[in-house]
Amino acid sequence: MESPPLFDLKTYLQSKQEQVNDELVRSLPPTSSSRIADAMRYSVMAGGKRLRPVLCLAAAEAVGGCSEDALIAAVALELIHTYSLIHDDLPAMDDDVLRRGKPTCHVAFDEATAILTGDALLTLAFQLLTSPEGTAAVPADRRLQVIHAIAAAAGYEGMIGGQMADIDSEGNRIDLSRLEQLHLMKTGALIDAAISTGAILGGGTSEQIRHLHKYAQNIGLAFQIIDDILNVEGDPALLGKAIGTDKEKKKSTYPALLGLEESRKLAADRVKEALQALEYFDKKAGPLRAVAQYVINRKC
Amino acid sequence: MESPPLFDLKTYLQSKQEQVNDELVRSLPPTSSSRIADAMRYSVMAGGKRLRPVLCLAAAEAVGGCSEDALIAAVALELIHTYSLIHDDLPAMDDDVLRRGKPTCHVAFDEATAILTGDALLTLAFQLLTSPEGTAAVPADRRLQVIHAIAAAAGYEGMIGGQMADIDSEGNRIDLSRLEQLHLMKTGALIDAAISTGAILGGGTSEQIRHLHKYAQNIGLAFQIIDDILNVEGDPALLGKAIGTDKEKKKSTYPALLGLEESRKLAADRVKEALQALEYFDKKAGPLRAVAQYVINRKC
Repeated sequence: MESPPLFDLKTYLQSKQEQVNDELVRSLPPTSSSRIADAMRYSVMAGGKRLRPVLCLAAAEAVGGCSEDALIAAVALELIHTYSLIHDDLPAMDDDVLRRGKPTCHVAFDEATAILTGDALLTLAFQLLTSPEGTAAVPADRRLQVIHAIAAAAGYEGMIGGQMADIDSEGNRIDLSRLEQLHLMKTGALIDAAISTGAILGGGTSEQIRHLHKYAQNIGLAFQIIDDILNVEGDPALLGKAIGTDKEKKKSTYPALLGLEESRKLAADRVKEALQALEYFDKKAGPLRAVAQYVINRKC
Repeated sequence: MESPPLFDLKTYLQSKQEQVNDELVRSLPPTSSSRIADAMRYSVMAGGKRLRPVLCLAAAEAVGGCSEDALIAAVALELIHTYSLIHDDLPAMDDDVLRRGKPTCHVAFDEATAILTGDALLTLAFQLLTSPEGTAAVPADRRLQVIHAIAAAAGYEGMIGGQMADIDSEGNRIDLSRLEQLHLMKTGALIDAAISTGAILGGGTSEQIRHLHKYAQNIGLAFQIIDDILNVEGDPALLGKAIGTDKEKKKSTYPALLGLEESRKLAADRVKEALQALEYFDKKAGPLRAVAQYVINRKC
């Protein structure tokens, strides 16, 4: 199976992350124009792997399209991801004080500002996706299709539903299939949307999109399993947040249900399946292959 | 100036409210499918005047279009309005326990559920606006334009920015022009978006939209001034919420800055200007004319 050397991935990730960060800076309101503008910028530009944007751009390239056409969607996905972190960190939710090595939004500002900042980022995502400048090269009906996919993935049947189920499950032991369902909604749906919208904007065929959907489902779960593992044995300095919090909150996680060893094996199986789904593609899917390896080897 | 008799407006409002309520019920997730589904339905179907949806449908008719084409936008606007109320009512924001005569979302459920329910309603609005079923009769580029207008009005430059400024102003006396600016953002922007998107979806000309924008700005401010007045001297039983809360929170309001008499005069002037902006239209703007009268005479 083809896989580019590690150096290539690093360069690729850096270049895409820069592209996304530049566009994020352009898309956010100017600093110091208001408290909400400052809070939006604080949270979005606090770092982060930009995994969803990179997957979106890489998917556009994998189907033979131009990643430029997917850039606004990539940015919108990161805004939605950031809003979800801000709200998840609130005292009424996970009550986390550290994120990406910095005080969370409600700690750096205050709770009301954090709620409104999350709302503003979610709203800005849809404003950008419909901007007359944005992806004007893409036909309007395809843009509507992309917005619909992102909204569905982020909504009550996807990310928000998963977060609700996650909170409900605290203190209750749930079984493996329920845990998988929860994570397919909470993390998987938006990762899937990142990849499918990249493919749609890149002009992918329905057959290509079907294969990428299989890749996405597997990558999403592998990502979450590793997340759970890192919460047990990760390095807080590298992670930029505390570890052991899942156990404290009595959360059902893969390590809690299966143990660390079995969880690692499950993540490796998922990555293997993700790579198999990419066999349909030529070397343009190289970045997606490399990201699959990265997901399982990551330390943060 | 033409103005339909009161009975007509009542019948018109009832018929439009029913149309909107039926579509809202269809658009929400089924009851008891999850806690978030129940909370979404609880807050959206708790009553309410459906002012923004009615304005949206009436604007489509005023420009000679079909209100059916604006129905999904009308529903989306009400979802966004409801989400904003749920988040505004949170303990970290206005900390209100009663809304439309019922316990607020975080009281009926809990704070985490209320945050996620607001998020879910905002997201669902954009999912509906891009639904393949929705307004399929409307060209895709016009739909993108409508979503953009709604997102901009609901975002950090509009409703959310206004809410942030409103919280910041608590305990600080602000002057009249700052208060007007705040309300143009907090309440005015979404009312303006309701009317302009109705006009766009109804196929209005830019000249028609320009006149309706003037109507919208004035109606929005009149609505807010009356809101402030009702918070002083309204009937809590009719309003479905406590009065006197603005004074308790030392909020800058029109009555606080101008007194009740002068505030009433200002609202009447605004309604007069709104009606003047409608002189450009024929009798199809009858409902918008009647709504202007309703705004100033309302008791709840």
